[in-house]
Amino acid sequence: MAGIPNVITDVERIFSKFPGIGRKSARRIAFYLLDKKREDILEIAKAIVDLKDKIEHCTICNHITEQSPCDICANSKRDDSVICIVEDSLDVIALEKSVSYRGKYHVLGGLISPLDGVGPDDLAINSLLSRLDPVKEIIFAINPSVEGDTTSFYLTRLLKDKPIKITRLARGIPIGGDLEYTDEATLARAIEGRIEIPNE
Amino acid sequence: MAGIPNVITDVERIFSKFPGIGRKSARRIAFYLLDKKREDILEIAKAIVDLKDKIEHCTICNHITEQSPCDICANSKRDDSVICIVEDSLDVIALEKSVSYRGKYHVLGGLISPLDGVGPDDLAINSLLSRLDPVKEIIFAINPSVEGDTTSFYLTRLLKDKPIKITRLARGIPIGGDLEYTDEATLARAIEGRIEIPNE
Repeated sequence: MAGIPNVITDVERIFSKFPGIGRKSARRIAFYLLDKKREDILEIAKAIVDLKDKIEHCTICNHITEQSPCDICANSKRDDSVICIVEDSLDVIALEKSVSYRGKYHVLGGLISPLDGVGPDDLAINSLLSRLDPVKEIIFAINPSVEGDTTSFYLTRLLKDKPIKITRLARGIPIGGDLEYTDEATLARAIEGRIEIPNE
Repeated sequence: MAGIPNVITDVERIFSKFPGIGRKSARRIAFYLLDKKREDILEIAKAIVDLKDKIEHCTICNHITEQSPCDICANSKRDDSVICIVEDSLDVIALEKSVSYRGKYHVLGGLISPLDGVGPDDLAINSLLSRLDPVKEIIFAINPSVEGDTTSFYLTRLLKDKPIKITRLARGIPIGGDLEYTDEATLARAIEGRIEIPNE
């Protein structure tokens, strides 16, 4: 378009693909960046590249970390006998904010979804099975959805013959809601009120 | 906070300062970037730095451009005898989208605002005065606000003795509204219906 340099439309195109950002906001951001000092821009660019370069997945729980094992796995004060299974690292962060859980986590890295071509082999399930030795309880903290229920069902079957109690978060989480956006108080209550899944 | 690597909070902090992005959206964006391939991340970082490095201000009209003079100033088909004065480059882009103006522009780079310490010397007013030779009409396309009215008044006084007709956009723009967000049809009508400012 006349009057708009290509480097600006490039940045607009990139930002308008970001979650929650539309075309108008992307333009606002491009002009916001244009007003910044060069060193600020270099800092922003570096932070984005660092994000990619410095983050790895914990070899134990698959949570994102700057150094494996992650802080939570490396913390000997946390209870090794309970593992809370979540879809992704955002859920770990949300649960940690509720300050009501002192066990460990396991991040699946997704949910079983045949429609999206995601099967059990695409999730961190083998690494879960290899760390069950001290575990007495597994808590499913998985969003209530078709994919979440399918994944819970699959894992329950897989753990059927182990001497492990399987629980899920109490139904304090609204159906159709997103765990990551649930408030701290509700998450804390959901952890306290977790109920056992009969596994016969 | 436990469970969140520093490089992620760094990126969240940066993005939450962007216009229109809150804390939750910034986190969403950080995780969106984390899922991207490294080459995509480098492309994003490069686009942001390019924005700063490749954009300059047109030496004639002060509009942003990759090469001075800008496309609009360099276009010999556009009418040299009319200059449309705007606050910033976003306004040029908005007016260009309305496809109803074939003259030139002059970007002030702000508005006179004593409260914010912005005086006439901080704006591209000298470069405006130096290009008045072929000009028969100056259109003020400045947002209706205290600063906008002050700036229009100042420029009108400054141009008092020149043989130049001074007009402003028709009052099609809602008071308190933002020129940049006005729809194309309204902008087109505002340009057609521009009225002369008596300058005695």
